[in-house]
Amino acid sequence: MVDTAEPSLSSEEGREKVPRTVRELLTEMKDTSEVIVDLAYASLVFDSEDMVEEVHHLERRMDTLLYNIRIKAMLSARTKRDAEQLAGLLQVASSAEMISNAAGDIVKLLKYDSDKRPFLPIVLKEAEEKIKSLTIADRSDMVNRAIVDMGVESETGMRIIALKRGKRWLYDPDEATKLKAGDLLIVRGTDNGYEVLRSFANGENLWPQYPKPEGQ
Amino acid sequence: MVDTAEPSLSSEEGREKVPRTVRELLTEMKDTSEVIVDLAYASLVFDSEDMVEEVHHLERRMDTLLYNIRIKAMLSARTKRDAEQLAGLLQVASSAEMISNAAGDIVKLLKYDSDKRPFLPIVLKEAEEKIKSLTIADRSDMVNRAIVDMGVESETGMRIIALKRGKRWLYDPDEATKLKAGDLLIVRGTDNGYEVLRSFANGENLWPQYPKPEGQ
Repeated sequence: MVDTAEPSLSSEEGREKVPRTVRELLTEMKDTSEVIVDLAYASLVFDSEDMVEEVHHLERRMDTLLYNIRIKAMLSARTKRDAEQLAGLLQVASSAEMISNAAGDIVKLLKYDSDKRPFLPIVLKEAEEKIKSLTIADRSDMVNRAIVDMGVESETGMRIIALKRGKRWLYDPDEATKLKAGDLLIVRGTDNGYEVLRSFANGENLWPQYPKPEGQ
Repeated sequence: MVDTAEPSLSSEEGREKVPRTVRELLTEMKDTSEVIVDLAYASLVFDSEDMVEEVHHLERRMDTLLYNIRIKAMLSARTKRDAEQLAGLLQVASSAEMISNAAGDIVKLLKYDSDKRPFLPIVLKEAEEKIKSLTIADRSDMVNRAIVDMGVESETGMRIIALKRGKRWLYDPDEATKLKAGDLLIVRGTDNGYEVLRSFANGENLWPQYPKPEGQ
């Protein structure tokens, strides 16, 4: 395969493997609990069935992670002190899973007819940080460059919540993911940051040198 | 009062007023459900009792907001169609409140002795987006400038989760807040963004022109 996007998609599939240590499990649960809340609100704003699917996927994933972290914790505890420390981690893990359940409840709304929930997108678009989408143009300077190499978040303040390539969604995309022409990005941030990012995505402006030279 | 910080602190107090429309209530609940998750994890990383206090404050605030949005929704519903639409909003409101309860559960951990939870900060610091703190130096170019005027998030990708001035915490500070020397900022973002922001905060670098001139 010479497809430049391959590393990111395979690392995405790699996520389906369950981490093996308590520490890795908790790290993934913490990250997921943050991204799933963003994704749930984004699903309502964009009225997107397949983003909803991703939320449910993450929700099921959290169940698996919680089950596994409990088992690992019990097998790791040798002393009373170990057990006390691990009990704390399990409390955080359990709260992270509750957050993902609440996010799952939010997207359940989309099963109702859209005329029964017409002003939700309007309400959510009024929030401080906006969730918006943009598409990478063929002539964009961002094509074939990795998110990490451009420093998208440092340069524009916009966080990429999800990326749609063809029919496939990549939520919370890996920093090593290379963008391709036609990618749809779901991003979160301020109006200013969005305008800057959009000017790069549609090819109006060239991506600035990154990292910035000292003193700039 | 000539204190430049006054507008932000009074707007902070202004938040204690409960919004009057369903739309405003839901907007605040959505924003709060996002920031409270960040704050809860930050409380563990910094082992900070007063950040915990802020999380509990927000949790109580969410109870008030949920109670009020239910009342407003019932008083607003004139027809079956109204009621169906408002039921959807109440579902989102209720999920946002569940998220804040889970965040409140996370910080309950801090009531245990710190030797029973020693590696939590380490685990959480491994997450993709780091939560870190920095202090605004006397000689920093950021002193006496508003967050919005500098475009902190657009310029550095760092989100200011909370700000401590003297003994007082300001969580999710208003964009109009002017920074002062000695302010402690709790920020979330990548390592790169943090280094950039720190160089401005400690006075090593001057804040860049903002908004950027076209084409940069």
